[in-house]
Amino acid sequence: MTTATGSAQGSAQGEGRGDWVKETGIPGAFGFTEPFEAVVSDVRTALTGVGQDVTHGPVWYPPLMATARVERSEYAESFPHLLGTVHAFRDDQLGTPEGPQDARRPTDAVLAPAVCYNVYAELADQVLTGLQTFDAAGYCYRHEATSETGRLRVFRMREFVAVGAAEATATWRDEWIDRCQAFFTRLGLRVDTVSATDPFFGPGGRLMRSTQLEQGLKYEFVAKVSGQDSGTAIASANRHRDHLGRRFGIGVEDGRTAHSSCVAFGLERIALALVHAHGEDRRNWPEIV
Amino acid sequence: MTTATGSAQGSAQGEGRGDWVKETGIPGAFGFTEPFEAVVSDVRTALTGVGQDVTHGPVWYPPLMATARVERSEYAESFPHLLGTVHAFRDDQLGTPEGPQDARRPTDAVLAPAVCYNVYAELADQVLTGLQTFDAAGYCYRHEATSETGRLRVFRMREFVAVGAAEATATWRDEWIDRCQAFFTRLGLRVDTVSATDPFFGPGGRLMRSTQLEQGLKYEFVAKVSGQDSGTAIASANRHRDHLGRRFGIGVEDGRTAHSSCVAFGLERIALALVHAHGEDRRNWPEIV
Repeated sequence: MTTATGSAQGSAQGEGRGDWVKETGIPGAFGFTEPFEAVVSDVRTALTGVGQDVTHGPVWYPPLMATARVERSEYAESFPHLLGTVHAFRDDQLGTPEGPQDARRPTDAVLAPAVCYNVYAELADQVLTGLQTFDAAGYCYRHEATSETGRLRVFRMREFVAVGAAEATATWRDEWIDRCQAFFTRLGLRVDTVSATDPFFGPGGRLMRSTQLEQGLKYEFVAKVSGQDSGTAIASANRHRDHLGRRFGIGVEDGRTAHSSCVAFGLERIALALVHAHGEDRRNWPEIV
Repeated sequence: MTTATGSAQGSAQGEGRGDWVKETGIPGAFGFTEPFEAVVSDVRTALTGVGQDVTHGPVWYPPLMATARVERSEYAESFPHLLGTVHAFRDDQLGTPEGPQDARRPTDAVLAPAVCYNVYAELADQVLTGLQTFDAAGYCYRHEATSETGRLRVFRMREFVAVGAAEATATWRDEWIDRCQAFFTRLGLRVDTVSATDPFFGPGGRLMRSTQLEQGLKYEFVAKVSGQDSGTAIASANRHRDHLGRRFGIGVEDGRTAHSSCVAFGLERIALALVHAHGEDRRNWPEIV
């Protein structure tokens, strides 16, 4: 450790990532200084412009999600290793405040694995008329073991979501693939659009993988977020078919189960990709907003 | 549940709090729509102006804090009931993905109880020259049992922090009391400045309480955040003496332990107080930024 001098302003001294990112002692969780946050904020504003036919800006959800919402999504069945749960002492345990951390019990909250589950939970057990679209954002958590730049355990996600009839949600998703490509081109990012899969856990995973690829359910927008990076998904456009509609009991007018699609943007990853592509001096960047 | 119609935009249908706040199924954790987020963003920008002699904007920390940082602060010894810890399966547990949530083990992260511990951790085991000031922000979590408006379990906090010699940090804190009062007056908020205490846990708490009051270590800025509210602390200005300097091994040039002070702003509470004081139509508000 060096001896600190002068009046610091909380700006980072790098660790090889310039003054924009700060280590926090948690692999994959970073603090960000004002120049980086300004990029995140501008990307957020730009995305509102991309979705301006349906939104004036996102609902910003807290970093926690109700355990009941995540249970209904059955996320933990597919991704048990990625879910972070929030534990605390119960009132009746407080006589022993020196107890081990293991003695804390699960609460009514987990770390949000994705923001769009909030949307389905808000529509739960309803019958929808027409295609409904939503704009949601917030911090997400994935209990990833690795910690290279861009493989974040804690990150902000912006999601546009459509819920309704099968064909309408599929068309909506396909249109958003074009919007995403146009958006990233405008940002001056070299992005590959690649067919992908969600890495479902367990022995059924391989089968589900080939089905997902065959049906084109998931496309990822892949860009470099650092010099060493061979390519990181900075956004994805997904069709869930009636997977989440079934779990949340959402119907459409003809008596069928609602389908859903979502387009998710990783705000820190897009900001990192912009810094990598254009350098740290924003005067050299294309207009974002 | 009602039948949804038309093209919703994710905007809230109230629950008695207008279109600005959304329930999430977790008492004390809310989603916020764009008009509310715009207030939070403007308050954030305004606070950068209040601190413009020392900052261009905060370091924005993630909602999680390294367990090691919180342990060194000894937060859990004073507030065991308020700390939320993050649990997950270890790799060697993944053979049993259907195991009970209780089987998840503590990770290297907890929900951040305050942002300023990151600052002390970054200065740990150093010797400082002069007064150092920092600007830090991020989500915090307090495992509160209640859920009235303003008693948030998850909220964003902005903290200005000073670390250095005893007298310099005390003077800095007192000057910030004046800055806070001027800031809240400019926002058109009726705010009482009251001497307060941190509710330390356990049998020593009462003794510590009287000591804190006597020495004027904590002042809270109390305003109404809703019609039923009798007064909520929307900010506080605190002196920690050498409490945290000792725990994090921070020294000053004369060989003594560093003292610290912090001024903390609850961003959602300030936004709620503004809505309560001026109404939902921002054309009737004073200039914030």
